[in-house]
Amino acid sequence: MSIIAPLNTTTDMGFSALTQAYQSHSKTPALVMAEIRERAKDFESYNIWIHLLSEAEQAPYLDALKDKDPASHPLWGIPFAIKDNIDLAGIPTTAACPEFAYTPDSSAQVVQQLIDAGAIPVGKTNLDQFATGLNGTRSPYGACHNAFDFDYLSGGSSAGSSVAVALGLASFSLGTDTAGSGRIPACFNNLIGVKPSIGLLSATGLVPACRSLDCITLFAYNTDDANTALAAAEGFDQRDGYSRQNPFSNQERQYGLREGELTVGIIAPSQLKFFGDEQYAKAYQATLDQLSEQGFVFKEIDYAPFDKIAKLLYEGPWVSERYIATQPLIDENPDAVFPVVREIIAPGGKPPATSLFKAQYRIKALQQVCLAQMSEVDCLLTPTAGRHFTIDEMLEEPIKRNSELGYYTNFMNLIDLASVAVPTQFTHAGMPFGVTLVGPTFSDRMLLSIANRIQQTFPLPKGALAYPARPTNNTKVAAPDGIDVVVCGAHLEGQPLNWQLTERGATLLAKTSTAPVYRLYALAGGPPMRPGMQLNEGNGAAIEVEVWRVPSAEFGSFVAGIPAPLGIGKLKLADGRLVSGFICEGYALEDAQDITEFGGWRAYLNA
Amino acid sequence: MSIIAPLNTTTDMGFSALTQAYQSHSKTPALVMAEIRERAKDFESYNIWIHLLSEAEQAPYLDALKDKDPASHPLWGIPFAIKDNIDLAGIPTTAACPEFAYTPDSSAQVVQQLIDAGAIPVGKTNLDQFATGLNGTRSPYGACHNAFDFDYLSGGSSAGSSVAVALGLASFSLGTDTAGSGRIPACFNNLIGVKPSIGLLSATGLVPACRSLDCITLFAYNTDDANTALAAAEGFDQRDGYSRQNPFSNQERQYGLREGELTVGIIAPSQLKFFGDEQYAKAYQATLDQLSEQGFVFKEIDYAPFDKIAKLLYEGPWVSERYIATQPLIDENPDAVFPVVREIIAPGGKPPATSLFKAQYRIKALQQVCLAQMSEVDCLLTPTAGRHFTIDEMLEEPIKRNSELGYYTNFMNLIDLASVAVPTQFTHAGMPFGVTLVGPTFSDRMLLSIANRIQQTFPLPKGALAYPARPTNNTKVAAPDGIDVVVCGAHLEGQPLNWQLTERGATLLAKTSTAPVYRLYALAGGPPMRPGMQLNEGNGAAIEVEVWRVPSAEFGSFVAGIPAPLGIGKLKLADGRLVSGFICEGYALEDAQDITEFGGWRAYLNA
Repeated sequence: MSIIAPLNTTTDMGFSALTQAYQSHSKTPALVMAEIRERAKDFESYNIWIHLLSEAEQAPYLDALKDKDPASHPLWGIPFAIKDNIDLAGIPTTAACPEFAYTPDSSAQVVQQLIDAGAIPVGKTNLDQFATGLNGTRSPYGACHNAFDFDYLSGGSSAGSSVAVALGLASFSLGTDTAGSGRIPACFNNLIGVKPSIGLLSATGLVPACRSLDCITLFAYNTDDANTALAAAEGFDQRDGYSRQNPFSNQERQYGLREGELTVGIIAPSQLKFFGDEQYAKAYQATLDQLSEQGFVFKEIDYAPFDKIAKLLYEGPWVSERYIATQPLIDENPDAVFPVVREIIAPGGKPPATSLFKAQYRIKALQQVCLAQMSEVDCLLTPTAGRHFTIDEMLEEPIKRNSELGYYTNFMNLIDLASVAVPTQFTHAGMPFGVTLVGPTFSDRMLLSIANRIQQTFPLPKGALAYPARPTNNTKVAAPDGIDVVVCGAHLEGQPLNWQLTERGATLLAKTSTAPVYRLYALAGGPPMRPGMQLNEGNGAAIEVEVWRVPSAEFGSFVAGIPAPLGIGKLKLADGRLVSGFICEGYALEDAQDITEFGGWRAYLNA
Repeated sequence: MSIIAPLNTTTDMGFSALTQAYQSHSKTPALVMAEIRERAKDFESYNIWIHLLSEAEQAPYLDALKDKDPASHPLWGIPFAIKDNIDLAGIPTTAACPEFAYTPDSSAQVVQQLIDAGAIPVGKTNLDQFATGLNGTRSPYGACHNAFDFDYLSGGSSAGSSVAVALGLASFSLGTDTAGSGRIPACFNNLIGVKPSIGLLSATGLVPACRSLDCITLFAYNTDDANTALAAAEGFDQRDGYSRQNPFSNQERQYGLREGELTVGIIAPSQLKFFGDEQYAKAYQATLDQLSEQGFVFKEIDYAPFDKIAKLLYEGPWVSERYIATQPLIDENPDAVFPVVREIIAPGGKPPATSLFKAQYRIKALQQVCLAQMSEVDCLLTPTAGRHFTIDEMLEEPIKRNSELGYYTNFMNLIDLASVAVPTQFTHAGMPFGVTLVGPTFSDRMLLSIANRIQQTFPLPKGALAYPARPTNNTKVAAPDGIDVVVCGAHLEGQPLNWQLTERGATLLAKTSTAPVYRLYALAGGPPMRPGMQLNEGNGAAIEVEVWRVPSAEFGSFVAGIPAPLGIGKLKLADGRLVSGFICEGYALEDAQDITEFGGWRAYLNA
């Protein structure tokens, strides 16, 4: 064991700290980049970089900042590292295989968007060759070492990208994730790891591993930084066949601190695996205990269908995609491929299309079972990894232990889910541990908002630096699954228009009353008979109401169907909250009957 | 040529005619079923049925009607035919291969839902064996014959299902569609053919052709009947891996007559193919001409990427799915398989998974090009088929001519689109011709609504019957892309809160004014300063307003962000329409300034 204490670097590499330093002119981007290059010398033995940019190579990006207004470029001067299976113009892309290398003319779409937003590339990072692995040892550039203990795995395949951020050699970085490569290294290096929904970030300029599953990912210190980088990196790209438009509304894309009750699916205890790592088992339990105190409600799910899907990734025909990606090299010059990687990929030409179709059928069937379980919770929460191996342990059984590393991660992309790895604990030995939040396609922002809440709960440092990682908590995000509407008349449960709520999948949240500031009227006309409410601070009463949550997508048609003189405005509830609800135009109250004395519509009807 | 004149059957088999006959007791379901069995004898040479239900086999379904209230069972007593690759409990499912046959204990999910809604199964219909073909000749039960000319193709593979409806032996029917089997027979027999989005109808109880692409489809006389049957047949089914929840809101699921301007993508003339069928070429042009007169605006699209996708279906590795579906029969007893079907399917075990992945990559890339073109139009419109062959012509070159039949249909399911085939013309020779509307996933109802408008334009009979097919037109559906909101103050273009509309992708539809029945007030408070409007029929004025269309998904968050005393209710515009828009609670107008004399908020601010 050779654990290093948190680094007292001179610079806090978080986005807001750097941005403030630039604003106050206490630092310049060029100075920060020079510091990074200098500090990188201390960590050469970690095998982080395949290509660290020279001052000359970096100069054009720094120069370009002159023409960029920091106010409109959220990543102005922020250094980032790029996994070396993602293109940076003019710098070789190796995928950790020198014989495979090529020098691209243009940067990957995502890299270009980050540069356009002001980010500065630091270098290209080491990886498990062709992104085939979760451990970080499978590289001719040497095994990558963990930021907290030189003897331990960095995790992979996005090995160097994670260690670079943890050690403050970049503020964020790009990884990739097919089977867990964007999450395992986040866990092992105390970082947020965002594995976006497939197609949210363009894959143009990415060396494929399994092209139908690959995602470019982000490593960052906290959810604020991750969200800022994600916003700059995401976007539809017609050149990428797997790119997709995010169909969700602005509301559901909103990132902040997720408030309110949260029901989180956790794996049944009998299905948990820690592969002998008692420290990780304890850290996981401690995480659950603390989250429970913070209002997280846990619901056990059956992990068996997820695990069955996971096994298909490496044991099924998806290896054919890796074979396609490494042809013709793997056929013509197999010795150029790292031995254990070759062993995995070489058989990929053999499976028939029938085996792939059969596997896809099986996954579709299992996906239904998984999604049904997920529909009952806000998200899943799993350990990100079951065990943190030393490099020596890994090399003893490279296939088996890699498979153990993927126990909680392999299923994800095969059933098109989003996930965020978030650190929660240090073990008694001082090594990082974290959990992964899992949600449906395009739930990325929702997961980041829950991760924010988890980061509020666990005060941890930024990677291996001596600065706190905690994100801001001043942007609150409510549960995104509907719009709450206060009803007081024909829409009450059991009343004639209640079906307009239930047919839209609305759910009854509360039977309550308004603040004592309303007068209730029975309007002329009908059927159906309808009430109207009028604010009267001086001479009002508390009126019986119900709060219904209407799915966002249905809210428009609900409001569009409300006839005059009624409409949807804001009502004050007994607890003081202002909630959307039925209001009434004043002209209609003139010939209406004041029924405030009944205290509610039902009581009036009964009388 | 042996064209038959429209049949003067004693019964109009459309849903509303039958329902009225049952209501008036002029018919009973049992009588209609007896008539069908009798009439079926006249058409035995058409090879429509593989199994026509006997009176005894049908009796339980008729008996069950006693316990069903017609008012709540939209298909009460409506006879339907079932393609014989879809299970009906207790009746053999053959897929047109006697050696493959099995007798299912339960009905397919879709069949059961239709029966539950009151529909009565008539029988199991003939098809191209294993749904492998678009022509209707590939069956050991004999080639199926066209309802309008015995010498001509019925179309396939849903051959008997289409001819049965066209000849009034069922009111609607179930087909299936992998490459066009639910559309080509609709075109050749003057029927609506609904090919729903993959997964909208459960495939549980369906013999797969290409399981990842198969859709159960509907044949009906008009869009009203098709919509009623679709509503009963659709729904998520967890047992089917490819089943999906329809994510669209009620509004977007609405079916009616699609009004307003329509921009429709059509194939560039140089890419049209009629394979020598001058009559179909003329019918297509006549269709465009008439639709143009009815306000359809056409935009040419490049069909090349669609055609490239189409070719992959039969020339690529998808044949491996057909091979899986027919194993072990095709290996162990190949003589049991119809020769041309065997020729197509037998090589399906050979393609490697790599070829399938490569084909999927290519399709994903082409899909982006296709979707980009589709995003600029309301839907595509193509000829459903380029040529109507005689049975003899087909048998001369069974592979080549089948491929020609699929020129406009094969691409559809590979890129997950919805489509509706709709009849538009009879050729000079008296044969039916039609077009297919194509839209994105889950645009099914939108396409049916456009098809309704097309059916209004072309007064055609029901199949080969002597009754008009025209659907009702009293349910109007506007363009489904948003909720219209009338704004009168800070949300007007250029005003301080207009961004709340534009950031949601809202578009300005009209600058107009209200009906002359409102008073306009400047409310106390701000900034931003806000107006309030109050209805005053006796002493009102026309107020300047704008109508903005807010995407449905964004409407909820827009309304939720409106503070008291404002809300969204209904406003009357100068043209008399009642549209959702800003209203104001009465209490807030008490200390507000009446600014009606200015005629609008902008004029007041300028003054």
